[in-house]
Amino acid sequence: MTQLQAAKAGIITDAMKQVAHNESVTPEQVRAGIARGHLVIPLNPAHKNVKPVGVGALFTTKVNANLGRSTTRSGKGDELIKLAVALKAGADFVMDLSVGSDLFSIRQGMLDASPAPLGTVPIYETVSRLEGDIPVMNPDLLMQVIQEQAEQGVDFMTLHAGLLRGHIASAMRRKMGIVSRGGAIMAEWMQKNKAENPLYTNWESVLDILVQHDVTVSLGDGLRPGCLADASDEAQFSELDVLGELVKRCRERGVQVMVEGPGHVPFNQIQMNVERQQQVCDGAPFYVLGPVVTDIAPGYDHITSCIGATAAATYGASLLCYVTPAEHLGLPDEEEVHQGVIAYRIAAHAGDIARGLPGAREIDDRMAEARVAFDWEKQFECAIDPERARARWLKTRSCEAGAPVDDHCSMCGKEFCAVRTSNRIRENK
Amino acid sequence: MTQLQAAKAGIITDAMKQVAHNESVTPEQVRAGIARGHLVIPLNPAHKNVKPVGVGALFTTKVNANLGRSTTRSGKGDELIKLAVALKAGADFVMDLSVGSDLFSIRQGMLDASPAPLGTVPIYETVSRLEGDIPVMNPDLLMQVIQEQAEQGVDFMTLHAGLLRGHIASAMRRKMGIVSRGGAIMAEWMQKNKAENPLYTNWESVLDILVQHDVTVSLGDGLRPGCLADASDEAQFSELDVLGELVKRCRERGVQVMVEGPGHVPFNQIQMNVERQQQVCDGAPFYVLGPVVTDIAPGYDHITSCIGATAAATYGASLLCYVTPAEHLGLPDEEEVHQGVIAYRIAAHAGDIARGLPGAREIDDRMAEARVAFDWEKQFECAIDPERARARWLKTRSCEAGAPVDDHCSMCGKEFCAVRTSNRIRENK
Repeated sequence: MTQLQAAKAGIITDAMKQVAHNESVTPEQVRAGIARGHLVIPLNPAHKNVKPVGVGALFTTKVNANLGRSTTRSGKGDELIKLAVALKAGADFVMDLSVGSDLFSIRQGMLDASPAPLGTVPIYETVSRLEGDIPVMNPDLLMQVIQEQAEQGVDFMTLHAGLLRGHIASAMRRKMGIVSRGGAIMAEWMQKNKAENPLYTNWESVLDILVQHDVTVSLGDGLRPGCLADASDEAQFSELDVLGELVKRCRERGVQVMVEGPGHVPFNQIQMNVERQQQVCDGAPFYVLGPVVTDIAPGYDHITSCIGATAAATYGASLLCYVTPAEHLGLPDEEEVHQGVIAYRIAAHAGDIARGLPGAREIDDRMAEARVAFDWEKQFECAIDPERARARWLKTRSCEAGAPVDDHCSMCGKEFCAVRTSNRIRENK
Repeated sequence: MTQLQAAKAGIITDAMKQVAHNESVTPEQVRAGIARGHLVIPLNPAHKNVKPVGVGALFTTKVNANLGRSTTRSGKGDELIKLAVALKAGADFVMDLSVGSDLFSIRQGMLDASPAPLGTVPIYETVSRLEGDIPVMNPDLLMQVIQEQAEQGVDFMTLHAGLLRGHIASAMRRKMGIVSRGGAIMAEWMQKNKAENPLYTNWESVLDILVQHDVTVSLGDGLRPGCLADASDEAQFSELDVLGELVKRCRERGVQVMVEGPGHVPFNQIQMNVERQQQVCDGAPFYVLGPVVTDIAPGYDHITSCIGATAAATYGASLLCYVTPAEHLGLPDEEEVHQGVIAYRIAAHAGDIARGLPGAREIDDRMAEARVAFDWEKQFECAIDPERARARWLKTRSCEAGAPVDDHCSMCGKEFCAVRTSNRIRENK
């Protein structure tokens, strides 16, 4: 029985109880939200030691870190190190987006090492087995890969089932065409084989597999815009309409589902994008990639995109897929994975505060109190990255060796520390 | 004659012409905007080699970089290096916030080296001359420092004239009290001397000095919130009302004026804050510090704050004061100055696109076209930080030495490059 089937049957599972406890809500709230399809708990029973994590508006906004090798770079060892970095930095979910060789082993390594739910994009392994030759793909192979990955313990899968053959023409009129790896693969296959999207045509068979293993569907947005000029266009929203239809079919079959979203979107269009997804997909949790709010900052796309992610979370997105500083330039290294996760934890938390999630601001208030009290250790405890905050503070402190510097920092120096002056005013001395 | 006096008299100055040219608007639009007080060109004729830069909704959003020594750290040489870093990264304005000794010389060095307009906070030098002993300050000394700095060529000055004695009680009821250096100084002086804010009581005399040198007033927000809990409170908005009154008095006297704003503000309160400032201050250009959208990320406050700055720019702020990764921990080093300016150029540009500034998205479109064409050199030309983008790309490329890697990047590898696949679909081959 999937979490969704249980919820519909009025059953509160252990996973629901655990999530309720973590999120300070009642188990019945979790059950009811899952039953309506507004919440999901991606959790494949075959993934040993996985911890249940909830996604949806009732919960704190979650962060996903994409990992995985490319055909030419990295491998199992490197990716396991990056996984550890991502988890330590606070990623709630991880995806293994590896392509090339050794995929089963890399994935197994990640499943074994990750208490965070793990997602994949099965079309990557499918095409990897064909050494990148997309047109020769037999849809049966794709179904077989989905089956194998579900049995192996993958908690959620991105499936680009909403990109239909009829959408390709409008996508090709865009400035950037298709920038989703999975979307481009599906589109080329359809074009060369003059056939409809096999995930769409075989959707019920796909759900037959997923319902067996309670794999959560993450409906891929193969036509997400790859630049600001392509945002909110016909191609994007045509696909979204199909995703709305597929959400219903997932729910009917008892398969948990969330929906992926853009991409590259001007800041002023983000609210509309989130609201439109929520309306078209009947409140299914929205899983967004950024969005980046300008195309011109390669090397800084963790920043361009966490700006958009904050807005998306504020307006209703529930899961934020990080973007690292390496985006548009290369595969991220460990430090870039760390920077990506931290930027997205900032976005998720700022969004939670902005949308008024109960209790979200408590830690900010504790930080403020620690600042007034010059309690640096408490400040580091409240910090999103305690190690780096402490290290940066110590770097300055060491330059003032011998002096008592606990009641100010080097930014202004002791005499000009506004907090010290303000404390004097308060005490009127 | 100040720019404002000229504009009111119907005169289009050389500075207005230059700004109009840079911003692709007409000189008459610039003149009319200055006459109404909706635009300013901070430009002191005594600042040799300064280039006119416009601030206001008609123009691109501008970025200010704060520099300057603390009492215990840094000095003229270090700060001149940071100035060069800030200018190279693209700062439009700089402020010298130095406290301690050697202030005239540091400021002169910056004026000589900076074609960007330079701002100061005269109360810092005043209290520095008193070795930090705030209560003994004679208001005449403050007036003398304003006079000297105006003569020296300072283009704009932050004056905390709107924080009145009657506001202190409400500020002291806050979680963090007063976190503005200048605000805390004025408040302590008023408390100890049982007197009203001398800048407020001597405002006409202050304007007598500034009008002589066309120094632009930047009305300081001494009661800006220092944590999310204190945002949008009585203290903040009581001071804002006084700033609105002072804006009118500046304009009547022909003194250009802009208004400073918060600080620490939850994401969902930023739009209201900007709109309230624009209403209360009759469209005077809004100069914001961030705002940071969560208190818990020391070490990453360039990110927490450029999220808020993007929203502020979108909703109407015209000048963004950068925050560096060192904020709340220490004085920024060169790399932190660089990171701060870049983050804020991202915010300014994303805001310009979001508010529909004509032409703002053109460079993003060129970037998108360069990406489709795998024209890496053109991508670097469009990049906000060309050197770092190129270096990051080369880092990956060097790992693939010998292979032709110009038509993909290491993120996905050649076979899985969505742009390559999409280009094949478009060409149908």
